[in-house]
Amino acid sequence: MRESQTRRPHPAPRSETADQLLAAAAALMTERNTIDVPVADVAARAGLNAALVNYYFRTKTGLHIALVRRDAEVAVAEMNRLLATGLPPAEKMRRHLTGIIRTFQRCPYLYRLMRALLRDADSKAAREIVEFFSKPVIETQKAILQEGIASGAFRPVDPMMFHLCAIGACDQLFAEQSTLRWSFGVAAIDDDLARSYGEFVVDLLMKGFLARA
Amino acid sequence: MRESQTRRPHPAPRSETADQLLAAAAALMTERNTIDVPVADVAARAGLNAALVNYYFRTKTGLHIALVRRDAEVAVAEMNRLLATGLPPAEKMRRHLTGIIRTFQRCPYLYRLMRALLRDADSKAAREIVEFFSKPVIETQKAILQEGIASGAFRPVDPMMFHLCAIGACDQLFAEQSTLRWSFGVAAIDDDLARSYGEFVVDLLMKGFLARA
Repeated sequence: MRESQTRRPHPAPRSETADQLLAAAAALMTERNTIDVPVADVAARAGLNAALVNYYFRTKTGLHIALVRRDAEVAVAEMNRLLATGLPPAEKMRRHLTGIIRTFQRCPYLYRLMRALLRDADSKAAREIVEFFSKPVIETQKAILQEGIASGAFRPVDPMMFHLCAIGACDQLFAEQSTLRWSFGVAAIDDDLARSYGEFVVDLLMKGFLARA
Repeated sequence: MRESQTRRPHPAPRSETADQLLAAAAALMTERNTIDVPVADVAARAGLNAALVNYYFRTKTGLHIALVRRDAEVAVAEMNRLLATGLPPAEKMRRHLTGIIRTFQRCPYLYRLMRALLRDADSKAAREIVEFFSKPVIETQKAILQEGIASGAFRPVDPMMFHLCAIGACDQLFAEQSTLRWSFGVAAIDDDLARSYGEFVVDLLMKGFLARA
């Protein structure tokens, strides 16, 4: 953690101007359904000078990381509130997994942005995102799993394997736009589809698809 | 299906020279751990003139699609053999899901190549790959699910939701190299990890993680 903070060229932006630029980037990425949005367009949308993007984020990648960080902060705060509840572990896990899908649905650019930044595992971007987003998700899952295994509600499962399997299942709705369109005739992921997919994933991961004897 | 064939600029390569170029591309992508391999390097590795890449595949994307098609043919043949066996549906599904993970492990470039080609759902590449790879996978899963539901071995599940959830879980080992490295200290996916992940995914999807009463 300390190493990653030392390596980060800029602290997370806190200024109102930086927040406006992030909001403009998010809005344009959502409207245009792509993460390839020119910095000049972001500045214009925010009604600000393009030089401010360089000032606050240094590079386009810096802007992208800051946007993921902004959304991660909301998600991590949600996870911390969930862990602090007295809900039974099965209900915590249900809400946690549903929350992952809801986050990607609420921020339609986020899945692609994270994939692009995580593609090169050697990059500083990948290390930072793992630090401020993947690790809190993994720790949340570990805590819920430990509680559920201790109480006898869950079978013992390996946290790393569980993490990959659960995240893969949750993310896939957002990874498979080509298959959705050309195999299933689904042109866009609306809130109904995201909600019913969330219910399906949680149910399948929790109960499996084998019929009970 | 017919429309996609009409749109395809070249038929699948059948010549020995084209096969040599594909084998060279696969070898270089595997060795260098990247799909960004120059066409000139592919030709040099095959001991052939770079103009032949243009002749057989027209573009670098054409070469990439042909390589995915080559690997898809092996996987689809395996799926067809599996469907023709008299194995119980649970065993068929177990082997099918394990086979997906084995395919990505055997062809370490394949996951990234497919992600890159499927990224733009509007592209011809995405439509072709859905046609020759995703659709046979979906049909295989549908057939096994129908058989299992009819025999009472499986709970009734929606084939589209199941497809997304199962493929997402299987693929994720290959999508999460950054998290594997920086959160779990896993530098490379060896055969042991791929095999044990396969067992975990199959087990979790089939049985779920809730403890049986």
